[in-house]
Amino acid sequence: MKVTYPRRRILESIQPYEPGRPISEVQREHGLERVIKLASNENPLGPAPLAVQAIQREISQIYRYPDASGFHLRQKLAARFGLDMSNIMLGNGSVEIIDILCVAFLDPADEMVTSERAFSKYVIATRWMGGVPVLAPMKNWTFDLNAIFERITNQTRLIFIANPNNPTGTRVSNEEIHRFVSRLPHHVVVVFDEAYFDYLEPEERPDTLRYVREGRNVVILHTFSKAYGLAGLRIGYALAPVHLVHEMNIVREAFNMNHLAQIAAPAALDDEEFLQRSRELNRQSKQMFLDELNRLGLDYVPTCANFVLIHFDRPAAKIFQALLRRGVITRPMRGYHLPNSLRVTFGTLEENEVFFRTLEAALAQPVEMPSAP
Amino acid sequence: MKVTYPRRRILESIQPYEPGRPISEVQREHGLERVIKLASNENPLGPAPLAVQAIQREISQIYRYPDASGFHLRQKLAARFGLDMSNIMLGNGSVEIIDILCVAFLDPADEMVTSERAFSKYVIATRWMGGVPVLAPMKNWTFDLNAIFERITNQTRLIFIANPNNPTGTRVSNEEIHRFVSRLPHHVVVVFDEAYFDYLEPEERPDTLRYVREGRNVVILHTFSKAYGLAGLRIGYALAPVHLVHEMNIVREAFNMNHLAQIAAPAALDDEEFLQRSRELNRQSKQMFLDELNRLGLDYVPTCANFVLIHFDRPAAKIFQALLRRGVITRPMRGYHLPNSLRVTFGTLEENEVFFRTLEAALAQPVEMPSAP
Repeated sequence: MKVTYPRRRILESIQPYEPGRPISEVQREHGLERVIKLASNENPLGPAPLAVQAIQREISQIYRYPDASGFHLRQKLAARFGLDMSNIMLGNGSVEIIDILCVAFLDPADEMVTSERAFSKYVIATRWMGGVPVLAPMKNWTFDLNAIFERITNQTRLIFIANPNNPTGTRVSNEEIHRFVSRLPHHVVVVFDEAYFDYLEPEERPDTLRYVREGRNVVILHTFSKAYGLAGLRIGYALAPVHLVHEMNIVREAFNMNHLAQIAAPAALDDEEFLQRSRELNRQSKQMFLDELNRLGLDYVPTCANFVLIHFDRPAAKIFQALLRRGVITRPMRGYHLPNSLRVTFGTLEENEVFFRTLEAALAQPVEMPSAP
Repeated sequence: MKVTYPRRRILESIQPYEPGRPISEVQREHGLERVIKLASNENPLGPAPLAVQAIQREISQIYRYPDASGFHLRQKLAARFGLDMSNIMLGNGSVEIIDILCVAFLDPADEMVTSERAFSKYVIATRWMGGVPVLAPMKNWTFDLNAIFERITNQTRLIFIANPNNPTGTRVSNEEIHRFVSRLPHHVVVVFDEAYFDYLEPEERPDTLRYVREGRNVVILHTFSKAYGLAGLRIGYALAPVHLVHEMNIVREAFNMNHLAQIAAPAALDDEEFLQRSRELNRQSKQMFLDELNRLGLDYVPTCANFVLIHFDRPAAKIFQALLRRGVITRPMRGYHLPNSLRVTFGTLEENEVFFRTLEAALAQPVEMPSAP
């Protein structure tokens, strides 16, 4: 009674995306009351307060279909970036736009180039379409744009560059980007996934908007899931030249963005105070993590995002489990072929303290651990 | 600077889905204060009150990613339908599951069979994948399952049966369904889109769950957008045998269903009082529409849903515009090749009255109208 056909073999072989474990699930399984989740790069300060207020005013309207054109949010974003509304497409999280890009631009056997240890979604969505993922090596845990450029062929249609990258937290410079984009052949669309843009210091920020304004085959992805604290609502957007937005819109589900998301996002954009507070906390957390990781003598990748990739001298699965049993959820990196690493999201300062206290206890455990620190 | 490749030609030729016009847009354009929207088959009573309360309690949690497994809602639905949780997949509206089905089961050149004048999304999503839509004729404005059966070939992978169908409001009987499913070849998946299920009288309801329980290649789609009044939140689900849910899950975005939707839907399921009230209003509206349409001597398709397809003796575009200028939004049917028809959603009894008063005025307009009633 099973359906069989060619592409199914590809689909069956896909390693599914492994999300961070929800708090309620960990509470259920481990009988824990307090659980700290440092697994999904969420904003530990919660949602932007102005967004919460906007939702409260609008709940009674959820019986209406959302505005398929996303008028108000696109208008607001256009003004913010000095673009036209026709340069903006909204998504059910920026992750849905990754899917949309693959449906719009990949035929079976077309190639998508990205880096090894990039956000795993690029490979998954490529394989959905029967496309061929091509992975360039990293340099110093960072996207190597030269290595990516060398892998462009006549079959290449899409390139994904996560900047900063998840799970490494590293970024590429504007000089590297400019050299890369300037040499790009015309049959290729390059996507700069800037989900962690809002955590960058001004001098670190990518200057990719200029390519959109120039009408190049460049797509920028941003999200409200991180610094704006709206991950549960699912809101992301693409900035791109009109000809690309047109092609992406053809394969966008008309009602992909729910009404409360469309209401909350413009309010969050107005919540400058919350964004500043979130950035300031992230700066403090980053310093605290660096200090503690150095103190513990642990290896890690210097980060410019709201999380850090930590390398241990032993399989991280046991450390992950030990942390979990004590109520701290982190993210194992098996899917990225980094069995000795964990990705840890910065929490509140108090949560960070609990994490390091719990980590020290976990590392001190003698059970099946070849060496104790 | 344009990207070109084979499937693009198909994508470019797709007639995009034309949604009902949002109230705010019509207010903006026509300078109207009060606008009545009878264009999108929404519940005129608003959202289920228990769902609204559940959202209010949960807004502070929207900074967390939604549960990728949809645990609580799937648990609740499994209990309600006497199925296992593994028989249920959630979607960003049931319309997203139509996309997921096409990505999971259609290779380029594979065939999808449905009826002419069925929900246009089946054809759109099929063409996204480079699939070939095959449209069987209707019989009496109703899906003709024999005509569909005759069009099954070795290349057929998917069949969509909307029951009741949008935009005709007609349904197929359990006897017809049984004859159809019993003869179905094993290489075909048949999808019963039952978005309007909750408006059916008990004796009209399709008995398709039995095929899911038997493990046949049958998928049932339901939604919270209609009778439960949650269209703006985007929640739908599929009921299907485990082997099909498994294949669909591979191409489902992990965080496709936002957190507030996952919270609101179980609460709406508990709101039996609201559902009964919605059904009762719909019964009254249906009767009122039939009476008025008969009184006006207008042609229409007898409906078992929350809307009715009305045929005029002249191009409906002018009637649509005349209604719009007076603040009543209905749905033109150009996309369904029915230029003389409008689809009208049942409103509150008061909204229905306004509609008929406005319609009579519009029909009485002499401007460019060949005959006045």
